[in-house]
Amino acid sequence: MDDDVPLILTLDDSGSSTSAPLDDLDREELPNENGGTYDVVNDASSPAAGDCCAQQSSAQHNWEMNYQEAAIYLQEGENNDKFFTHPKNAKALAAYLFAHNHLFYLMELSTALLLLLLSLCEAPAVPMLRLGIFVHATLELFALIVVVFELSMKMRWLGFQTFIRHKRTMVKTCVLFVQFIEAIVVLVRQTSHVRITRALRCIFLVDCRYCGAVRRNLRQIFQSLPPFIDILLLLLFFMVIFAILGFYLFSPNHSDPYFNTLENSLVNLFVLLTTSNFPDVMMPSYARNPWSCVFFIVYLSIELYFIMNLLLAVVFDTFNDIEKRKFKSLLLHKRTAIQHAYRLLITKQRPSGISFKHFEGLLRFYKPRMCARERYLTFKALNQSNTPLVSLKDFYNFYEVVGLKWKAKRNREHWFDDLPRTAFLIFKGINILVNSRVFQYTMYTVVAVNGIWILVETFMLQGGNFFSRNVPWSYIVFLTIYGVELLLKTTGLGPVEYLSSGWNLFDFSVTLFAFLGLMALAFNMEPFYFIVVLRPLQLLRLFKLKKRYRNVLDTMFELFPRMASLGLTLLIFYYCFAIVGMEFFAGVVYPNCCNTSTVADSYRWVNHTVGNKTVVEEGYYYLNNFDNILNSFVTLFELTVVNDWYIIMEGVTSQTTHWSRLYFMIFYIVTMVVMTIIVAFILDAFVFRMNYTRKNQDSEEDNGIVLEKEISKEEVVGIIELYKRSSAAAETAQLQKMVLQMDKYGQMSTLFLGRRSRTKSDLSMKMYEEEIQEWYEEHSRKEESQTPLQEPVSASNSSLKPLSLRQRSQTVI
Amino acid sequence: MDDDVPLILTLDDSGSSTSAPLDDLDREELPNENGGTYDVVNDASSPAAGDCCAQQSSAQHNWEMNYQEAAIYLQEGENNDKFFTHPKNAKALAAYLFAHNHLFYLMELSTALLLLLLSLCEAPAVPMLRLGIFVHATLELFALIVVVFELSMKMRWLGFQTFIRHKRTMVKTCVLFVQFIEAIVVLVRQTSHVRITRALRCIFLVDCRYCGAVRRNLRQIFQSLPPFIDILLLLLFFMVIFAILGFYLFSPNHSDPYFNTLENSLVNLFVLLTTSNFPDVMMPSYARNPWSCVFFIVYLSIELYFIMNLLLAVVFDTFNDIEKRKFKSLLLHKRTAIQHAYRLLITKQRPSGISFKHFEGLLRFYKPRMCARERYLTFKALNQSNTPLVSLKDFYNFYEVVGLKWKAKRNREHWFDDLPRTAFLIFKGINILVNSRVFQYTMYTVVAVNGIWILVETFMLQGGNFFSRNVPWSYIVFLTIYGVELLLKTTGLGPVEYLSSGWNLFDFSVTLFAFLGLMALAFNMEPFYFIVVLRPLQLLRLFKLKKRYRNVLDTMFELFPRMASLGLTLLIFYYCFAIVGMEFFAGVVYPNCCNTSTVADSYRWVNHTVGNKTVVEEGYYYLNNFDNILNSFVTLFELTVVNDWYIIMEGVTSQTTHWSRLYFMIFYIVTMVVMTIIVAFILDAFVFRMNYTRKNQDSEEDNGIVLEKEISKEEVVGIIELYKRSSAAAETAQLQKMVLQMDKYGQMSTLFLGRRSRTKSDLSMKMYEEEIQEWYEEHSRKEESQTPLQEPVSASNSSLKPLSLRQRSQTVI
Repeated sequence: MDDDVPLILTLDDSGSSTSAPLDDLDREELPNENGGTYDVVNDASSPAAGDCCAQQSSAQHNWEMNYQEAAIYLQEGENNDKFFTHPKNAKALAAYLFAHNHLFYLMELSTALLLLLLSLCEAPAVPMLRLGIFVHATLELFALIVVVFELSMKMRWLGFQTFIRHKRTMVKTCVLFVQFIEAIVVLVRQTSHVRITRALRCIFLVDCRYCGAVRRNLRQIFQSLPPFIDILLLLLFFMVIFAILGFYLFSPNHSDPYFNTLENSLVNLFVLLTTSNFPDVMMPSYARNPWSCVFFIVYLSIELYFIMNLLLAVVFDTFNDIEKRKFKSLLLHKRTAIQHAYRLLITKQRPSGISFKHFEGLLRFYKPRMCARERYLTFKALNQSNTPLVSLKDFYNFYEVVGLKWKAKRNREHWFDDLPRTAFLIFKGINILVNSRVFQYTMYTVVAVNGIWILVETFMLQGGNFFSRNVPWSYIVFLTIYGVELLLKTTGLGPVEYLSSGWNLFDFSVTLFAFLGLMALAFNMEPFYFIVVLRPLQLLRLFKLKKRYRNVLDTMFELFPRMASLGLTLLIFYYCFAIVGMEFFAGVVYPNCCNTSTVADSYRWVNHTVGNKTVVEEGYYYLNNFDNILNSFVTLFELTVVNDWYIIMEGVTSQTTHWSRLYFMIFYIVTMVVMTIIVAFILDAFVFRMNYTRKNQDSEEDNGIVLEKEISKEEVVGIIELYKRSSAAAETAQLQKMVLQMDKYGQMSTLFLGRRSRTKSDLSMKMYEEEIQEWYEEHSRKEESQTPLQEPVSASNSSLKPLSLRQRSQTVI
Repeated sequence: MDDDVPLILTLDDSGSSTSAPLDDLDREELPNENGGTYDVVNDASSPAAGDCCAQQSSAQHNWEMNYQEAAIYLQEGENNDKFFTHPKNAKALAAYLFAHNHLFYLMELSTALLLLLLSLCEAPAVPMLRLGIFVHATLELFALIVVVFELSMKMRWLGFQTFIRHKRTMVKTCVLFVQFIEAIVVLVRQTSHVRITRALRCIFLVDCRYCGAVRRNLRQIFQSLPPFIDILLLLLFFMVIFAILGFYLFSPNHSDPYFNTLENSLVNLFVLLTTSNFPDVMMPSYARNPWSCVFFIVYLSIELYFIMNLLLAVVFDTFNDIEKRKFKSLLLHKRTAIQHAYRLLITKQRPSGISFKHFEGLLRFYKPRMCARERYLTFKALNQSNTPLVSLKDFYNFYEVVGLKWKAKRNREHWFDDLPRTAFLIFKGINILVNSRVFQYTMYTVVAVNGIWILVETFMLQGGNFFSRNVPWSYIVFLTIYGVELLLKTTGLGPVEYLSSGWNLFDFSVTLFAFLGLMALAFNMEPFYFIVVLRPLQLLRLFKLKKRYRNVLDTMFELFPRMASLGLTLLIFYYCFAIVGMEFFAGVVYPNCCNTSTVADSYRWVNHTVGNKTVVEEGYYYLNNFDNILNSFVTLFELTVVNDWYIIMEGVTSQTTHWSRLYFMIFYIVTMVVMTIIVAFILDAFVFRMNYTRKNQDSEEDNGIVLEKEISKEEVVGIIELYKRSSAAAETAQLQKMVLQMDKYGQMSTLFLGRRSRTKSDLSMKMYEEEIQEWYEEHSRKEESQTPLQEPVSASNSSLKPLSLRQRSQTVI
């Protein structure tokens, strides 16, 4: 390897870089120093450094620093962290590294969860989990102290200035402060006061690193709000107009309780918007004059069928637009991150690209778990030209390539290829059988027959105790068939290949459950009977048959993470409303509570004796209360489903004040927003996917992204040399084993396959192909226009990077 | 003008065309005859025609025929009629002309409406409209005979072969046949039998020319069905699985009536899908074990929040796709029609375009109401080049240009410009005032104050008789303000300009209504009191303030025709279901009918005395019946809204059989389809519109399509010459008046503005700009590939046209 000196040297006060181009520094390259931020140590020591060794180790240290910073840039690019939070000095770096690993993230998450779960134990608590005030207040204080510690680490990393400027962190700090005071007050007074602020605890969860998706959802919801609110106003406007009309038209009818005052008229039309009190609300006036139905038909047509759909259209459109803008900004952010990292990895001698050595150094920090072979393969996959350097253009593909999982392309096709001849033939036979269409369709038939069987069986069995001691023979027969199928498939395909398919995994777990159910039946373990009931799930396999279903289910699985995060977002809203609901409405509804209200029937609980039989008349709605957080969640779910929600609202209202309705109406509007977003999301995802399939009809079947790379023996030996020099024993050993294996099979080279599943981002890349080029051009134009054309490289450099510590010190001194 | 002989002459047997290039035939052009279809007369007479006069008139006749056929082609292109229904001979042409005018269309429509309205009078009839069996059966027979007449005209036009092949017509014929027999049976037996076939009467309405939009909707619904059904199956599949699970889990609980049999379990989960029985269906099991709510939450999450949205996504996607394909095929169809028409209008001498004379001839048939000036303007607007001929390329814009309304660009700005100085100044002042922002915002403030006033007034007024003899002074004050505003605007802008804006029209009608309401109050006309109540509508004006609302409302108005046709489509489904419902369920529900069912309360009507007061307990649901067609429609609307629909279903079921549920479930699924389509349509329309606005942000404010053309005096004189020669007195007089006017103002030319509102098709043209070029190329490639390259023009000609009569006779002879 030849000597390398950094190309650009904008800092004259750093001795190490000027002394770099020495001949005795053979095999050592010096980093492109003006990028380095953390070389404070080096900065201090270098002017004194005279001998070669110190210089060499200092240069090495320099490089390590650069690798780390480049890795941090790439991580920031990936996580969409803004660059102004980039650690600015060695102390900040230490804090950054401390706060950026899974242990810390887990601590963050568990603290947040602990705080949220506390509401299970605080009054009004779930009966089984009730804790003394002292206990839960202490737990809360403990959790809050952990949060303080986390925040102080963050402050150390960000610096006070940035910390203050970071909005989310500031909100968190304020909430923390309030919570702290309240917890202490509770501890001192030994009683809980009205603590609505507990609803703010969610912010600790939202701020977790692992909840990035929730944050994005929340942002998206807030961004969709302005058009949503506009249309909502239109909706409310028509509601008011119709309320006035309705009041004038129907209040002379004294048997109509729905429109007797303007307030009732408004509330009932709001409820009618959710269709919840239809047709009851129409009936009294309809009974008097049949033409009054026109009022309701017009109202519903305008409000429910037109404006509500308009709401969806507007949100869907905004959503679409936001998704695209988000994708664009993320893409450009990643690109900038790559540029930052690139500048830190090129050398003065070879400014046209990154050599493997530096690339390897970067990966050591960026993906510590990656083995030496994979690092080299990633390098090769990036390197489009035949030069030993990765140019910036190639480096732009970093994120696409680094996620690939590399595996040697096996020469042997099946797991049993190495077995003796007879065994091989048997397994080969099984393999062929298992892969045959006949076998598959036989299994589909079996599943279908099983489905019909279960249906008929269930239909014949009317009531009574189904779980008799005698296990039905059909159960055993079908379970045996499934067991045999499972066995054949596992042996025929090999366990690893078998379980790599999602469908097989599904089959496997359902069969396992069925087996467990059988055990439960056989050994009479009553609580596990419900497992038996899961048998019909086997029928889901039938949906593999049609292409549209496969598409739908695949998309469903792709959507799942996003759906889960949307669900979590909804749960966070639920939590806030549950806390508020508990503080205000805990214990207000109970059996026979609302006998004076219009919904008395639903809350009635009468136990009267007719003849010699006790008849219980239950309205059950008293169960929908806010007595503890679990009950509140169920009640809120019922409110989300919307049907008959006014019964819950009226029940609570009759026990409290009219203003309680505000709580329920606001909840309705909030869930409407979230639900509309969810619908828009599902719509968008599916339509996008279908457009994509339509656009790429001719291209290959979708089985992820696959890349093929070949490594020759010489290359491996070359890398071993490199590693030996930097005395990395583990990597050397690993690579030598590879050479030995190649020798064993007498190969001169091995073919590797890199594979990863396709993400939404890949699809978007393909969909917006043309536009992306425009964005890139626009982006680079903007950059150029920002920096006057003095010294080209350093200028563009300074525009790309926040002022590093060394640069800053130079500016001051 | 120079002589013209048809360029192409594939028919050698027609003498008139071969004898055309004679010198004495000056000023007469001969049609490009191979296009003519109807010139049977000419075909027979031409070989004998020797003298110039006969020839000239025969040529003239030829041209008239060609004009007419070209106009028919263009009409077919516009209406998306297939060309195989093109009239093929003179007899067919007569029938075609008879069947294609508004009188005939109106007859068609009124017959269909009469047939549909008959169900108001047939048993079970609306009480007030009941007619004797003899009367309504005779009316029905009469209407059916009219339909027979219409069909026979159609057969004459289409010919037997095409008639048989035309599916819709054949279905109509069959239905007609059945209806005929049934009507006669009713007349003979003098009693109505079960006549479910009455549901098929809708086909007469659907087949009407005016109901083309409904037909398109129905086609779209049927095209969206396959993917819809796929997802529906998925939905039903999960329902069955959960029904089995629910049965196993909850049937041991004897206080749970919802899951005691598999059938109940299925029905209740179907109802739960509509959320109509939630949370009641959950309550018994929830009361026993709180964790059972998980079952319902999972079920609703999968079915309601996921698969139902998936349904919308799939339908939306299909809808999008169909819309685009429909637009494409319509566009290409129009293009072909234009090509056909073009071929009929060019001459042998000048094959490169259409001269004004022939264009004018075409317009005489295509738009008989157009005046001479407009015809010439249309010709000029089409003609992009400076030659006196319209080339095919220019002619392709025919449909876009022919819809323009032409008006001379006024020199005078206001209506009062011609008035004396003083009056002018006064009106000018009013004009400036009315157009000023201050005036507008003052009016907004007045409207807002009025709104708040009404709200407060209504709120203060709790019950009682609102319509006292004393008209409230606020009413008079605000009405006066609005009156003054109306007066100022009308005088300031002139009545025509004032009423040309939709918003002003709205203001005008609301103010008029308010005035009528005042009259009603003053003269104590009680039935018109409801008009007073419409006052708050004035508030709608406030929505002009924000751009988004203007956009939304504009789009709403653009959507209105399409929405109306969708509503009509829904009504047609309603009609079918109403007839079936009446035949099966008329009279089955009445007060206290269902005391043995689970929904007894809703049908109860008890009149008991407590103390000395009579208390009426009314369930009112007996009003939701199928006793006559109007009641059925209201009941079906309630079923569409879905809330509490199971009460109606269970009421009817308890009085009939279990199978009645099928009716309600099928109705639910049908409305779900139609509603999903409506939602998809609204979504599509709005998203399309918003995308369009985003794409054309920089372009002009959207105020329709405007074209400017100048006509010089010489041109007008030239046209007058032309008309004089063909002795069209009316046109000549009209044009001469124009010349006189130009002389009076001393102008050498007049500027005309052509204007029309932008349609969805214009928007689509702009949106798919690039793709449209591809479609055109593909289309013309396909045409070329269909016709081998012999004689280029005639070859492409034959591929474009159905074999005309003359050509056919040539082939035979």
